Formats: sequence, structure tokens, C-alpha cells
Amino acid sequence: MDLNQTIRCIVKLGGAAITCKHELEKINEENLETVSSQLRQAMNLGSCSNKVIGMDWSKRDGVLDISSSLADFDDQRQFTVDFSRFVVVHGAGSFGHFQASKSGVHKGGLSQPLVKAGFVATRISVTTLNLEIVRALAREGIPSIGMSPYACGWSTSERNVASADLSGVTKAIDSGFIPVLHGDAVFDDRLGCTILSGDVIIRHLAEHLRPEYVVFLTDVSGVYDRPPTDPNAVLLREIAVDEDGKWSVVKPTPQSMNMQVEITVAAHDTTGGMVTKISEAALIAKLGIDVYIVNAATIHSLKALRGELRHNIPDDWLGTVIRFSR
Amino acid sequence: MDLNQTIRCIVKLGGAAITCKHELEKINEENLETVSSQLRQAMNLGSCSNKVIGMDWSKRDGVLDISSSLADFDDQRQFTVDFSRFVVVHGAGSFGHFQASKSGVHKGGLSQPLVKAGFVATRISVTTLNLEIVRALAREGIPSIGMSPYACGWSTSERNVASADLSGVTKAIDSGFIPVLHGDAVFDDRLGCTILSGDVIIRHLAEHLRPEYVVFLTDVSGVYDRPPTDPNAVLLREIAVDEDGKWSVVKPTPQSMNMQVEITVAAHDTTGGMVTKISEAALIAKLGIDVYIVNAATIHSLKALRGELRHNIPDDWLGTVIRFSR
Repeated sequence: MDLNQTIRCIVKLGGAAITCKHELEKINEENLETVSSQLRQAMNLGSCSNKVIGMDWSKRDGVLDISSSLADFDDQRQFTVDFSRFVVVHGAGSFGHFQASKSGVHKGGLSQPLVKAGFVATRISVTTLNLEIVRALAREGIPSIGMSPYACGWSTSERNVASADLSGVTKAIDSGFIPVLHGDAVFDDRLGCTILSGDVIIRHLAEHLRPEYVVFLTDVSGVYDRPPTDPNAVLLREIAVDEDGKWSVVKPTPQSMNMQVEITVAAHDTTGGMVTKISEAALIAKLGIDVYIVNAATIHSLKALRGELRHNIPDDWLGTVIRFSR
Repeated sequence: MDLNQTIRCIVKLGGAAITCKHELEKINEENLETVSSQLRQAMNLGSCSNKVIGMDWSKRDGVLDISSSLADFDDQRQFTVDFSRFVVVHGAGSFGHFQASKSGVHKGGLSQPLVKAGFVATRISVTTLNLEIVRALAREGIPSIGMSPYACGWSTSERNVASADLSGVTKAIDSGFIPVLHGDAVFDDRLGCTILSGDVIIRHLAEHLRPEYVVFLTDVSGVYDRPPTDPNAVLLREIAVDEDGKWSVVKPTPQSMNMQVEITVAAHDTTGGMVTKISEAALIAKLGIDVYIVNAATIHSLKALRGELRHNIPDDWLGTVIRFSR
């Protein structure tokens, strides 16, 4: 893509990390606020000023409070609005899933009334979440711009990205904004329609925008050898991906583990789609881009977002690194 | 454009008609509900079934109520989801204007912190309104799809439309959806950024999509010869546009009017931008497309939306018709 400069980081805000999984259309406000604050800190590295302008000037709970933002705007130079180049992609969590599964949008068939209605209902739900995330980032002073993949012309062919004009995304980045994309209902040229997941969007963006690193913020500490609810679950701290895209656990060393990793990770998939996530992450790592999977809103996620792990992973860092190894 | 069929109607939902002008970010719920219902009736012409599926399956005021929509979905054939081909464009009303004028987004200058923040704040406000309108239409069973001009790649050059990829709009229409666009903050290749108004969007769409007719829903009965608050104001019922784009009042006949129309309409402009609206409408009429300017949520707007005025304007119809006359 014709970017003026390279992108520093693409971040996935996992649906489970920013919404309440078990309550329909409920945002995890506390997590979202912490995540937004950490993103500001990470994007704001090296800036001498910490003064930011809140950019959500809309009413919240019926009240307009932008006094702190605009009160003393006479000297604009004191404000920081230049952030390093990030792209944010979020999942759906408890938004959209209900509407999509109720109607079968992911299976296609737009000529059926229920699927057509579900397409509309799913887009309403995920764009509602997108707007709330854009607002949360804007309140932190991040110049965030919602860009729905459907509206931006993303479409699929049997669920693989078929077209995605990234010029809007690069134009936004080059103009100093932070694009915020999301998993969305889109047209599919074979199925009629389907669901394009945030993870697939991330991979496509990483391939074409070549960021320095990619961070997946989730609701667990990283990738485990079995469901993290299992008391014997072991956090996989480092996974290496070879040129063929095959991945293997480097740390902890295989000898130190008492189970066959591949089988138990596959079992994990039924509960959290972790194999899909590792597969997508492995495809990104294969490009030479480090991927960090880490618990959102923790000291560990802040380190990952700030890019502190790129040369050295501290022993006390909790998370999973997925890296290319020749 | 490569449309499978012609478009029946492009409708402008005027900001003043669907929001409360004097209260920041407040929707005129009653009007919006009536407008949505009239749109459904107009789009649903000729259908034998009146049963529609509500397509907003999101929580409202914290409550999810889709039981009526999905309860008896076993026999999908009884539902109507095929509507005639409309495009909806809405203004901003009390959304966006505050944010735009506070920051000067329309004048450009994205390198200034205040303008950059205002760009983000304006987009948050107008997309909030867009989402609410999409939801109101979806509740009426209209398969509406929000398409933000910014995200769809619209940009301007000194405030004139410079690029607007309409393929997303035509693809949505051809797939049986109703695109819902809106006045938006966009990039301008000379100014950096500006505000693209709903009226300019309508004209651009009309030029390229060639609908059968265009309806502007406003908060007054049509175009008057002076501010409608003036007790002597006369409703201009028919305006003719010639090949040069010049317009003249046909009805009431000029002799029956006791004032110079052009001067008083110009005076009107300071209060409501009516001259801009007539100019845009005249450019549409020049293409041979009838334009109706009418009070929203009235029996007159329903007639206009249903296309009943195309061959004969009843004497008791209140509104303004703008037509091409050779």
C-alpha cells in the first residue's frame, strides 16, 4: 500500500475482553476504559506533553461534558494530537453474535427473509459496538475513526477476503487518524453473505500494511496447552513458526511439558476458537511480524502495546509470543 | 452506474424534520417513527402482504424485544422483505452541527488540533444519528444499511464532490437493501477536510443513479416566497427549471403574487439555506427528475413518497414541485 510511513502496530481488541460475554450487548466499561488509556500511552510514546483533547463531544447519559476539552483552547500548541501509527480492529463479543447465529448470516442465503433481516440486525449490533469503542478511544484523545468493513467495500468469496480497498484505511492513517475496524456482516460472492471475523481482517491488514508488531488483547493470559479453566493448563510463552507456516512450542520446552500439545490445543478449540487464532497469528508471524497474545487491561498488555517486547521478553511477562524462526 | 434496475426514489430526511433543532443531539422520535412508517408504505407498494419483520434486534432502553419478529418464523413466505428501490440520505439537524461549528471542520486545516478533534467529534455525532435512523427504519421492517460517506470513500475538492465510489451503494440496492447515507465530515484535497452536506450527496446520487423522483422531507410545507414565519408568506407550489438551470415560479402565477420572489427568497436564505436547497433541487430537476419538497410526516409527504404526484398534482396537495420544462 502507498503509506507515507510504516505502521507501528495493529491491535485486536478481542470481543471477550471488551464486552461482557454472558450478557447481550453489554460493554465491559472498566476494561474498555483501561484498554483505551493503555492505547493512548502506547501511541503517545516519546511525546513531551501528556495533555490530550477529549474528542467525544457527544452527550453521554443525556449530559454534555466537553468543558475540560474546550475550556482553554486558546493555546493549541500545548495539546498532543499526534499519535504513532496504529490500526485498531475489534471483535463482536456479546454484540452481533446473537443476531448472526439466530439468522444464520454466516451461512449465507440473502434471498431468505430471516437471513436478510439477520444481516441488517447484525450490522446494527456490531456498528453500535464500533461507535462505543470509537467514543471510548476519542475520550482518551485518540483521533479514532470508525470504518465498517462492509461500508468500506470489504467482501468475501467463500469466506476468504475477496476485495478490500485499503486506500481509505491508509488515507486515514496518513492523515493522522486511527482507523477502527470490526468483525462485520459482508457480501460473499458465492454464499450471498457471511460474517467476516476480526481475526481474518487483522491478517489481511498485516499482510498489506506490514506493521512492526501485532497485539491480540484477550480475556486470558495467552495461549494454553488446554482450556485455561483446567488447573493443569500451561501457558505457552513462545511459539515459533517456520517457513512452511508450521508452528511449534519453544517455551516452555517440550520436554518440560507432560502432555502432547497439539492434541490438547485442538481440544481447547471447541471452547474458544484458539486454534483458529493461532493459525491466523502464525500466518502473520510467517511474514516476520511478531504477534503478542495477552490479557487485556494488565501490565502485560501495556508492555506489549508499547512494543517493549520486541528485543527482549522479560521472564515475568505473562503472555504468548508467536514469532517467525528460519 | 451498473444497476440491475432503475431506482425509484431518493429521499432526503431533513435534519430539521427528524431531530429537535433547538436541543443538542435530540431525535424527534415521533416524526422519525411516522417518517419510517410512511417510507415502509411507499416502498411496499403493490405487495399483497403487510406482514413485516422488525430488523432491529438490539436492546432498546436496556430491553430486548424481538419476540414479535421471530416468534413465528417457521413460515418465512408470509413475510415481505422485498421493497422497491429507494436510497435514503439524512441531514444532521442537532447532531454534528455543534461539533463542526465549534471546531471549524468545514473550513479545513486538519493539522490544527482543534480541527482534528472536531473532525472526530463530528463524525461520532453524525454516525450516532445515522445508527438511530437505520434502527428506526429496521424496526419498520425496512432492510436498511448505514453507509457513511467518509467510510465509503467520498471526498471533496474545495467542497465539490471529488470522488465517490458508488459501487457499494449500487451493490447494496441490487442485493435488496436500502442504503442510508448522511451529511458527513470528509477529506478535501485542497482544504484538508470539510463538511459534505446531505443536499450535495443527494444531487450527486441523482446524477449518477437517475431515480424516478426525489423527495425532500422538511419541517415546513415547502418553499415559500419569504420566511414561512412571515404571515404573508406564500407557498410556491410549482417551480419550473429550464435547460440553462434557471428556475421560475409557475404556480401561483407570478401575476397573482404581490412581491418579487427572487429577492424575498434570497432573504429567506439567511434563516434556512432555502436558496441552496432550491439550487440543488433545480440541478436535479434539470436532469428530468421531479423533485418534491414537502413537510415530513404529513399526508402530503406520504403522497410524494408513494410517487402519486408524478402525473397529476391534486389541488389540495401542500408542497413544492420542482420540474424541468423545456
